[in-house]
Amino acid sequence: MFKKVLVANRGEIAVRIIRTLKEMGIGTVAIYSTADKNSLHVQVADEAVCVGGPKPADSYLNMKNVVTAALLTGAEAIHPGYGFLSENSLFAEMVGDVNIKWIGPRPETIDLMGNKEHARNEMTQAGVPVIPGSDGYIKDVAEALEVSKKTGFPLLLKAAAGGGGKGMRFVYSADELAENFTNAQSEAQLSYGDDHMYIEKVMTDVRHIEMQVIRDQFGNVICLPERNCSLQRRNQKVMEESPAMSVSPDMRTELMDIVTKAVNAIDYENTGTIEFLQDQDGKFYFMEMNTRIQVEHPVTEMVTGLDLVRLQVEVAAGEELKIKQEDVQIKGHAVEMRLTAEKPEANFAPSAGKVDFVFLPTGGPGVRIDSALYNGDTIQPFYDSMIAKLIAHDETRAEALAKLERMIDETSLVGVSTSQSFQKALLADENVWTDNFGTKYLEDTFMPAWEKTLAEPSPE
Amino acid sequence: MFKKVLVANRGEIAVRIIRTLKEMGIGTVAIYSTADKNSLHVQVADEAVCVGGPKPADSYLNMKNVVTAALLTGAEAIHPGYGFLSENSLFAEMVGDVNIKWIGPRPETIDLMGNKEHARNEMTQAGVPVIPGSDGYIKDVAEALEVSKKTGFPLLLKAAAGGGGKGMRFVYSADELAENFTNAQSEAQLSYGDDHMYIEKVMTDVRHIEMQVIRDQFGNVICLPERNCSLQRRNQKVMEESPAMSVSPDMRTELMDIVTKAVNAIDYENTGTIEFLQDQDGKFYFMEMNTRIQVEHPVTEMVTGLDLVRLQVEVAAGEELKIKQEDVQIKGHAVEMRLTAEKPEANFAPSAGKVDFVFLPTGGPGVRIDSALYNGDTIQPFYDSMIAKLIAHDETRAEALAKLERMIDETSLVGVSTSQSFQKALLADENVWTDNFGTKYLEDTFMPAWEKTLAEPSPE
Repeated sequence: MFKKVLVANRGEIAVRIIRTLKEMGIGTVAIYSTADKNSLHVQVADEAVCVGGPKPADSYLNMKNVVTAALLTGAEAIHPGYGFLSENSLFAEMVGDVNIKWIGPRPETIDLMGNKEHARNEMTQAGVPVIPGSDGYIKDVAEALEVSKKTGFPLLLKAAAGGGGKGMRFVYSADELAENFTNAQSEAQLSYGDDHMYIEKVMTDVRHIEMQVIRDQFGNVICLPERNCSLQRRNQKVMEESPAMSVSPDMRTELMDIVTKAVNAIDYENTGTIEFLQDQDGKFYFMEMNTRIQVEHPVTEMVTGLDLVRLQVEVAAGEELKIKQEDVQIKGHAVEMRLTAEKPEANFAPSAGKVDFVFLPTGGPGVRIDSALYNGDTIQPFYDSMIAKLIAHDETRAEALAKLERMIDETSLVGVSTSQSFQKALLADENVWTDNFGTKYLEDTFMPAWEKTLAEPSPE
Repeated sequence: MFKKVLVANRGEIAVRIIRTLKEMGIGTVAIYSTADKNSLHVQVADEAVCVGGPKPADSYLNMKNVVTAALLTGAEAIHPGYGFLSENSLFAEMVGDVNIKWIGPRPETIDLMGNKEHARNEMTQAGVPVIPGSDGYIKDVAEALEVSKKTGFPLLLKAAAGGGGKGMRFVYSADELAENFTNAQSEAQLSYGDDHMYIEKVMTDVRHIEMQVIRDQFGNVICLPERNCSLQRRNQKVMEESPAMSVSPDMRTELMDIVTKAVNAIDYENTGTIEFLQDQDGKFYFMEMNTRIQVEHPVTEMVTGLDLVRLQVEVAAGEELKIKQEDVQIKGHAVEMRLTAEKPEANFAPSAGKVDFVFLPTGGPGVRIDSALYNGDTIQPFYDSMIAKLIAHDETRAEALAKLERMIDETSLVGVSTSQSFQKALLADENVWTDNFGTKYLEDTFMPAWEKTLAEPSPE
């Protein structure tokens, strides 16, 4: 096992990883930007190295500085967490080049799955159902028009190198195709230095269902219970849960077969998550694979009792998976919501500054709160606005939601605005309780209604 | 189900009970002393009633005030928590008399199990093994000598009416028996006006093993995995865990049979815990029964996934237990330590005052911290010194201990002294890790060695 591991991240995920490493008896190295010198992840680590200025590009994305920090401290492995450099194959390669172990899949795998069109082709070859669309890249508008006959409108124009919405367009008619194609292509070129485009059918009335998987270097595969992450706002997950109510045991078995096929085809190593759309007939269509730990991994840990970070570290150290598929049981139901430092009433404008008081309602059965917040902490404006993950686990979905609602009610933060009121409103929505929502529900139905209530005078 | 429940307690247990009630959709009433007006349990409850001054006798033990608070707020039931009035049969009766439901066993049961000799007789009749000793009262020295052949020396001479050590003698040989018997009997007569004496074998090298049980009014019984609470200081549990390493599956089955027999014999209703001594041969001997929820119930919740307070409320409301014995599975291992506001280096002198800063390391899998602390809170000198329970749950005992150690390391409290250094020292002790301790280990072996290290100059 590694003697020392560097965690190339910040915030709650850095703290969460460092804690598991400590429990495994592994020495820990944090990295931090000058803005983060008093952050919790720095305080809980055995060692900490400043890797640059507040801007991500200067520090957490500064590959040379991060690798140098690992070399200087004698770290034998790097855990990238999520975001930042976690899906940067160049960085993973650089890490390997200096004989430091990357806790994640091989750089080629990151690269393959990072290119959405390559991934789609690879999955098609492996027999994994993909969303109907173009067969490879679209050269020009004429070809796009041809593909649109198969997909219908609206269709989704996507940058092959994309992610995060850049170079992506919903196109509602043939008339709009030409203009959108040109715009999106330039945007892709600007954002990723790559203007390859492809087309996907827009699936309506679908759910976002994903399955976390772990595969060791001996080819053992463990599929974990699926998550439903259909409540999304601007492509950001707002609520995640496991298991998904729309997935029957048979469908779960089918999904596990698909996922196993997929990871075997690409000789995947370590954890990853394959995201699918599930249509009204219960069928699954491959969307993409995240080649890292995910924000929402706690819901999976709650229902399985596993520590996924520990498994990641063990697999990266060359160990064989100790558990077998039959050891993975689903116990109860878990739901997560992300508390962000934002003003929901002001179009979710980011909020930052000193936290004068924070109370997170830890305690009691089935409660987990992953956060790097502490009293007197400062929320920096440079990074992701997510400041805490509230996770509730109980025997049934309704009980887990009731627990989450109680937790959100108790949460208190003074000094910085949070998304709490938005989460409260969501948990007051009947469709959330009846599991009556697809990927468009939040933006198309809930938000307009909620925004209307904001305009009305408060009843108090 | 009840519409509103009053929680007749304070601190972490009041908060923990209120939270479950809220999740069940039940209205909550807190009670508080004037010293506790800003306490967390008051803030999380829907309503709160001041029941008197800071001293427990004036408020939390003030039966009339507590009952009046329940009547005034229309509470349909009272949950007593642990300590305070939780094992006061007079109070339980008073509550019943005004048609408020007591969340706990009937007053007669509390009374029966509260009298240690009555409980012992009742258990003997039910076929529950008790600590060897006299069969009822001892008339004279001759009879005491006869019993000593069965118990061996040392033996414990006890006043039937006793408690608190008056009329109690450890007798080390037959020669000392006559003198001790006469002395102890006169002391008992003087102290209690009752000279009835009995004899108990002194058990050495034993473990404190207890089993939590829940029984509904239909006679359904669920036994929960046993806890080992052998690490004790001044009869206070210092570390609790479940399951016990010294209890094999066969012994667990045996213990479950004994416990089931015991609760059926007294027609027990609601949760309770039967405490046993386990000798080196693995045999169990009844010590006493606690007719309430226990401080250490979270370790049981962690390994079973159950919410014991919810079960208590359901059973008290007349519902039938929804789970069956076969539904109760032991998953992994859980350990709890109690953080107290004390100065371990100054003979555990109590500490009180304003909490200028508190950080409790919530987050990550298998972590639970039950506490009513918040930043800026004041720890009152009037009540029990326990301020937080740190509970770690993992696949193995070693992993749970490593997690607990990491949690205690991260815990930070400024403004008030805590037992943290003592807990750290305990978790650095090899015998704790190898499960090599009985009920006397902490006081006879660990403490003297630890106190010696305090006298030595710090290596830093």
